Amino acid sequence: MVHTGACVAALMGQGGSKKYRLTWKWLQFFKNDRDRRDLVTCGSAAGIAAAFRAPVGGVLFALEEMASWWRGALLWRAFFTTAVVAIVLRALIDFCFTGKCGLFGTGGLIMFDVTSANVTYHLVDVPPVFLLGMIGGILGSLYNFLLEKVLRIYSLINEKGSAYKILLACSISIFTSCLLFGLPWLASCQTCPIDATEACPTIGRSGNYKKFQCPPNHYNDLASLIFNTNDDAIKNLFSKNTDAEFHLSSIFIFFVTCFFLSIISYGIVAPTGLFIPVILIGASYGRLVGMLIGSRSNLNHGLFAVLGSASLLGGSMRMTVSLCVIILELTNNLLLLPLIMLVLLVSKTIADGFNRNIYDLIMKLKGFPYLKAHAEPYMRQLTVGNVVTGPLQLFNGIEKVSNIVHVLRTTRHNGFPVIDEPLLSVSPVLFGLVLRAHLIMLLKKKAFLLTPVPTGTDDFNQFTAVDFAKKGLGNGDKIEDIELTEEEMEMFVDLHPFTNASPYTVVETMSLAKAFILFREVGLRHLLVIPKFSGRLPVVGILTRHDFMPEHILGMHPSLINRWKRLRIQFPCWDKIF
Amino acid sequence: MVHTGACVAALMGQGGSKKYRLTWKWLQFFKNDRDRRDLVTCGSAAGIAAAFRAPVGGVLFALEEMASWWRGALLWRAFFTTAVVAIVLRALIDFCFTGKCGLFGTGGLIMFDVTSANVTYHLVDVPPVFLLGMIGGILGSLYNFLLEKVLRIYSLINEKGSAYKILLACSISIFTSCLLFGLPWLASCQTCPIDATEACPTIGRSGNYKKFQCPPNHYNDLASLIFNTNDDAIKNLFSKNTDAEFHLSSIFIFFVTCFFLSIISYGIVAPTGLFIPVILIGASYGRLVGMLIGSRSNLNHGLFAVLGSASLLGGSMRMTVSLCVIILELTNNLLLLPLIMLVLLVSKTIADGFNRNIYDLIMKLKGFPYLKAHAEPYMRQLTVGNVVTGPLQLFNGIEKVSNIVHVLRTTRHNGFPVIDEPLLSVSPVLFGLVLRAHLIMLLKKKAFLLTPVPTGTDDFNQFTAVDFAKKGLGNGDKIEDIELTEEEMEMFVDLHPFTNASPYTVVETMSLAKAFILFREVGLRHLLVIPKFSGRLPVVGILTRHDFMPEHILGMHPSLINRWKRLRIQFPCWDKIF
Repeated sequence: MVHTGACVAALMGQGGSKKYRLTWKWLQFFKNDRDRRDLVTCGSAAGIAAAFRAPVGGVLFALEEMASWWRGALLWRAFFTTAVVAIVLRALIDFCFTGKCGLFGTGGLIMFDVTSANVTYHLVDVPPVFLLGMIGGILGSLYNFLLEKVLRIYSLINEKGSAYKILLACSISIFTSCLLFGLPWLASCQTCPIDATEACPTIGRSGNYKKFQCPPNHYNDLASLIFNTNDDAIKNLFSKNTDAEFHLSSIFIFFVTCFFLSIISYGIVAPTGLFIPVILIGASYGRLVGMLIGSRSNLNHGLFAVLGSASLLGGSMRMTVSLCVIILELTNNLLLLPLIMLVLLVSKTIADGFNRNIYDLIMKLKGFPYLKAHAEPYMRQLTVGNVVTGPLQLFNGIEKVSNIVHVLRTTRHNGFPVIDEPLLSVSPVLFGLVLRAHLIMLLKKKAFLLTPVPTGTDDFNQFTAVDFAKKGLGNGDKIEDIELTEEEMEMFVDLHPFTNASPYTVVETMSLAKAFILFREVGLRHLLVIPKFSGRLPVVGILTRHDFMPEHILGMHPSLINRWKRLRIQFPCWDKIF
Repeated sequence: MVHTGACVAALMGQGGSKKYRLTWKWLQFFKNDRDRRDLVTCGSAAGIAAAFRAPVGGVLFALEEMASWWRGALLWRAFFTTAVVAIVLRALIDFCFTGKCGLFGTGGLIMFDVTSANVTYHLVDVPPVFLLGMIGGILGSLYNFLLEKVLRIYSLINEKGSAYKILLACSISIFTSCLLFGLPWLASCQTCPIDATEACPTIGRSGNYKKFQCPPNHYNDLASLIFNTNDDAIKNLFSKNTDAEFHLSSIFIFFVTCFFLSIISYGIVAPTGLFIPVILIGASYGRLVGMLIGSRSNLNHGLFAVLGSASLLGGSMRMTVSLCVIILELTNNLLLLPLIMLVLLVSKTIADGFNRNIYDLIMKLKGFPYLKAHAEPYMRQLTVGNVVTGPLQLFNGIEKVSNIVHVLRTTRHNGFPVIDEPLLSVSPVLFGLVLRAHLIMLLKKKAFLLTPVPTGTDDFNQFTAVDFAKKGLGNGDKIEDIELTEEEMEMFVDLHPFTNASPYTVVETMSLAKAFILFREVGLRHLLVIPKFSGRLPVVGILTRHDFMPEHILGMHPSLINRWKRLRIQFPCWDKIF
């Protein structure tokens, strides 16, 4: 759902899809970097809001996990989106109340309602909850560790082709089915409780007490967990009325099975989530702890299951406020909030000691150049000049067409500095930064001059704002597609009107950490590096996202790898003074 | 409580108070700009968490309303703070359960619990709720408007001296008391309900049905509202069991009284809040609407009161997510969430059309140079060079003591550019930015040179990190306190080791909007402006927070005042491309 929401939003940000004729004129206003980013963030917030019926949790998830660059306006937009989601969802539930829409809306607005549970806990309950959080943190980081290893293997297999992908998915699917069908044979049959509120035993799709292989009036507790939907299993585990329903051994088997199955299921071509499996694993883990502690605690097993889910979510996803609100909105139990906060604190703190959160690990594995929110300590030891690489490609304010074509064909850079040779000065001056996409547009429209003399703003009239709008992914023109005659190649282009005349710049002696903060907080794509002393060229290089990636920096300065952990903060520490 | 939390945190950020001997060695680590900001933010989050027993709401309040510059690490810190608050609060409530601590903890963790209310609403309830939100938005902006006018008058009175302050507070206090005692006479006596769950009528401090002037077995409903604590009054208004308790006229009188009393009470020297009064006004307003709509809606009057509070809070404070969570944590009614989000959306949207939120208005009135989160449209029409003012004070890398003293005495600037005259170049080069506080420290320690020749790092040994730590408010040394002999005045100081060698810079032709984004997002104090073409000086000026204030900019460019509303976005719009 999160992914779906983000995809729909991204499609809107591209102005609809031309291929499928889903395009509207007004969507053009979103055709730029900033609005597209905002749309994707709001889309994912809406996804969470719809999937978990947690609108506020959705906003906070987008804030904490999605948005790499947060603006005040974005908070309002995300809130607007999820509010609309909440209202529509509530209206549809209302509309479907009579059962017109199948199973939709039967759960109401709260998925795993535990309001009815009597929450009385005292100071003596804090140590077991603390312990639960600690083990949850360790389990969460173990989950991340194993998932990363499995994904690494899967990506090797998936690279070999579609046949391998399908084969992998099929074998995992068959293995899962066999395991899930075989496992309940391990559990012994239980007598149906006399005061059961629902039918016992049952065979069909729904129902708490599954018959499986058991004689009449008996049920198999492991089968009851496995042959239910995930949602119902979680509801059962969270419920306070099921303290006697499950045996310790069944819960243990269920926990171990879920833990490993969810790890090997993620990363195959079929869409499998992370959130609901982790909640389920956590719920069974919490139940297990609750059963082991037994009557020494005032909390019932259902509440332990909720706290177990919180601890595993905290240990794996490492979010704080958003998890807190999502759990609150899922379970509707405000009185448990202090304990949930405690568990999240403990599990996140412990898990952070082992590895990074699961989304970071996956993004790193997929090779996305995602910048962390903080500068690494070793960045303080380097200047911007230390990491700028490669031959710099410059354009003059009025540049020959053949030069532009040559540079665009031989490099993959997306931005180029433009310099001017002023009449009054000896050294050239930095005029600005021109984007690859805009250069290609200029070449395509053939806005050329015969002589290298500026003509004023005449060129502008050929262009409309749409020409400079951000193109959809893969829809941008390529330099290879543009054909120019020999004559045109000898002509000139006046780049001045199309150049960003005031790009953000940093001096080459600035510490990398400070440049990183600028780059990250302002959400830049390119950062120009200018020399400290005016020399021949007015620009030293361009920093892009890739230049700030730890792999790139440590690759250039391998001596830092072992040294940076010993480094201390410089004196006086300019990072903290503004 | 918010203020108290922030004050405690600020005190810790100053390293404790020397005056009252409350100082610890480890607090020195917080003695810098960034940590002090973070501490104050966390302190206010803790204040909200404790005051409203709303830990998650506290984090979000700090995020949305307090922090002008939000960092990922801050979210975790604020969450940690409020989690500790929640746990301690819960432990204390547990400890005080037996009534050892007076009235503390009697309310439990949720202040205005409406869980028991039966929430069934359908699509037909949306229009009245929409209307409620609209009127709430108008009322909220009216509240802000009137409050600002009253505060403006009060500030004139308060300026005249302490006697006037006390006189004002006393007269407001006497007026309030007389009014509140007189009003209940307007209401007629009601017969006590037969099925009342509590004593009726009562006379003492607590109890729902106040006797006042009524005969036995009767109560005065207006007195019941007025002679209760605010908390109990809100609880009564939110409750679903009191539909028949209050008369329309009593609620109306109470609403109008509260509305105007809370406006004239804020701003006197006695500490009066904004949050609880607005909730109370909103609750009575919501009840009023609920009564007028009557049986045409499925919602009971208590829920209308909750929604009324939400609409007035949304119309006055203009927060979204944090208000949503705070209301959720106050009332513990998750099922109402879609309606609360709807009300907040509507009321904020409408109120934003009239004026700014109440905190912004108060900050503007008090003259705090608080920068808005967005750049104003007219800023796109100006370059940085247009707003830099004043004679620029420069220092050389090795500067004469008398020059430094003279500049520090004659200006109030907090940062000064340092330039160097390199041997190989004709024009001077910008070396960095030195802070006033550090210059004063250098003068105080008398780290002087006899000749203008750099000596390397010898000077460094005299200083420790503590010398460059941020001083507490009002504790900084002043230039007037430093006494220097004639001989010392003729000596030199090597500023290089104490200069921030890589300040953030912008080129003078950058649009003011872009410079504003840099300044605001990175959270700067000073922003150096460098020339486009290398001329005589390598720096054009320094931008501080004051230079970005609308008053300053519009003062310099009065032609913009009427023009900027008509301005369109420039083509191509560089603000949205990164």
